[in-house]
Amino acid sequence: MHISKFAIPEIIFGRGSLNYAGQCARSLGAKKAFVVSDEGIEEAGWLQHLLDVLDSEGVKWIYYSGVLSNPRDYQVEQGAEFYLKNDADVIIAIGGGSVLDTAKGVAIIASNGGKIKDYEGANRVPRPLPPMLLITTTAGNGSDISQFCIITDMERKVKMSIITRTLVPNISIVDPLILQTKTESLIVESAVDALAHAIEAYMSRIASPFTEMHSLKAIDLILDHLQPAVKSRSLDALEQLSIASVSASMAFSNAGLGAEHALAHSLGGHFDMRHGVVHPILLPSVMRFNLPFNTRKTAEIGKVILKGQAATDQETAQKGIDRLEEFFASFNVPLRLQQMVPVQDKSTLTSLCQLAVQDACNLTNPKPATQREFMQILDEVW
Amino acid sequence: MHISKFAIPEIIFGRGSLNYAGQCARSLGAKKAFVVSDEGIEEAGWLQHLLDVLDSEGVKWIYYSGVLSNPRDYQVEQGAEFYLKNDADVIIAIGGGSVLDTAKGVAIIASNGGKIKDYEGANRVPRPLPPMLLITTTAGNGSDISQFCIITDMERKVKMSIITRTLVPNISIVDPLILQTKTESLIVESAVDALAHAIEAYMSRIASPFTEMHSLKAIDLILDHLQPAVKSRSLDALEQLSIASVSASMAFSNAGLGAEHALAHSLGGHFDMRHGVVHPILLPSVMRFNLPFNTRKTAEIGKVILKGQAATDQETAQKGIDRLEEFFASFNVPLRLQQMVPVQDKSTLTSLCQLAVQDACNLTNPKPATQREFMQILDEVW
Repeated sequence: MHISKFAIPEIIFGRGSLNYAGQCARSLGAKKAFVVSDEGIEEAGWLQHLLDVLDSEGVKWIYYSGVLSNPRDYQVEQGAEFYLKNDADVIIAIGGGSVLDTAKGVAIIASNGGKIKDYEGANRVPRPLPPMLLITTTAGNGSDISQFCIITDMERKVKMSIITRTLVPNISIVDPLILQTKTESLIVESAVDALAHAIEAYMSRIASPFTEMHSLKAIDLILDHLQPAVKSRSLDALEQLSIASVSASMAFSNAGLGAEHALAHSLGGHFDMRHGVVHPILLPSVMRFNLPFNTRKTAEIGKVILKGQAATDQETAQKGIDRLEEFFASFNVPLRLQQMVPVQDKSTLTSLCQLAVQDACNLTNPKPATQREFMQILDEVW
Repeated sequence: MHISKFAIPEIIFGRGSLNYAGQCARSLGAKKAFVVSDEGIEEAGWLQHLLDVLDSEGVKWIYYSGVLSNPRDYQVEQGAEFYLKNDADVIIAIGGGSVLDTAKGVAIIASNGGKIKDYEGANRVPRPLPPMLLITTTAGNGSDISQFCIITDMERKVKMSIITRTLVPNISIVDPLILQTKTESLIVESAVDALAHAIEAYMSRIASPFTEMHSLKAIDLILDHLQPAVKSRSLDALEQLSIASVSASMAFSNAGLGAEHALAHSLGGHFDMRHGVVHPILLPSVMRFNLPFNTRKTAEIGKVILKGQAATDQETAQKGIDRLEEFFASFNVPLRLQQMVPVQDKSTLTSLCQLAVQDACNLTNPKPATQREFMQILDEVW
């Protein structure tokens, strides 16, 4: 076994844990917190709840709003300017992946200067970042746990992956109560994102026993609890999805992802798709591509999905992927790429496959895919 | 579910990971490291290996030696004086639980002053600690992962538990190669300590889904790999024990322990026993005491031990404990208390049970034991 690193933030988990945000901010030395969120969270009332908690602990704050889905380079750079101009000292974000990644981008620019694109890739952020307290409002993106930050370069229309140990925030608050105000589609998109994280991290070339354990746990929980969570909105089911998301995030942050996420980034950056929409389309096909390169591990995933096994690893692996497709089909989600990409844009897919080859996530795939292989996958799922 | 915290250090795991100690020390800002270890580690050559790695990375160091088993208050206080006198800035320890706990004690006094007994209990260390890099040489004590520090108060002959978030070190290096120079008895004692951590953390009143997952994984790995590790000394088996120990430590550091460790501390402090020796004697009996207070969870442990289940939870739980006793009996270890405590000292057990009632670990037991209940357990295992 190779040498592996495992790093996660301090996690405060449970119903009502948002109420600890003030204490957490103070433990990070906050005198004036830079708070970032978006319209959806404002409307659901969670931002005000957070600000009230900060007020009651005597933590001053400034608020940066207006984050869009798939956060953009200029938003991050404007945010950093706002942070510096106001002498803020701690970054607090409450929101989905876009908000949390914006917070991380602001942290990078606030202490390192320059443009966000200067830091694209792995381990390219030299200076330490301001303390970060991240509060997720979805159960999927995992930015509140991970060392990843995904920002769109608007000029190139590319989702840049920025990956470095210091992007692991100091504290992550995971409060399942917040999930109750989510729409059905957001619950599904977040959960399948977490599922893709868990599966890709498990298959990763740098998976370790610590990440593998979390991957398998997450897969099991999502398959058991997503349907009940969507149907009943029971807090118990939503809480299990939160646990799954945290587990999947611990796994992928430390093991990396794979070819599916590489492709999801290049498609998402170009067509401005919501990230969670692409996984049911791509994941089974990428798993079939990976199967021969690690049949044993694909079979281990199959065992969790099937809650049992077939006669051979090969068969267990294949049946697991088939069952996963049935699972995706049981939700009201697109299953073919043509539902998401206008037919007149089909010709751009070749260049997007080239971008996917270069995405950092492709490196940890069991066998990094070539442009031709990516194109075969997209043809298959068209 | 209550609100739970989960905090662990950054972990560098794998064969040869000791070679990263210099880079890790530098990432913590080390200019002059305070290094602590003991005679056994010196003789095995691991201390020199560490010092060579530090030299090659240009990290200066001072060395504090002479740690004894069950570290004592005065050693910690002398160590802190040595740290301060030499203007050290990072603490690095390589050793078993005694060495690592000494390092933590030194960290407390170096930045907080006073005597180590001033900090006994939970959350009583006000000031932040110097950065710590801990390198475990056993697969069991978990001090390199945990927020626990156990120091003996020589005047009272009591093992003090000091528990606080800031005792989680910054970085933990876990190198299974180091285990190869261990004696059989040390491998067994460490593994049963990890097993006790895993079981008590699983049963704890403040266990969370994140700690429970790690507990069950650790139990499973230790039952599968301890016998092979002792027989063959295969590196694969030793590595699995390392993984088990890290998992058990992630669990107990965040979920706490229980009545068995409370008793192990009071007996160990008084009779200066090696900590790992007492678990085969006490653990099954404490599990039987706890069974009625959480039959379901005792049965979950039983399922892992039995790799299957009986007709009822009650039966699965009981059979699991019986099987665990057989497991302990398969090693060359004491199974009755009279093998460890001179008969003329039996009368002191009553007062040791009173100390166990007050130990912080007793609070998280499914039902905190009373003095009378502790005494019944000791009578049963005498």
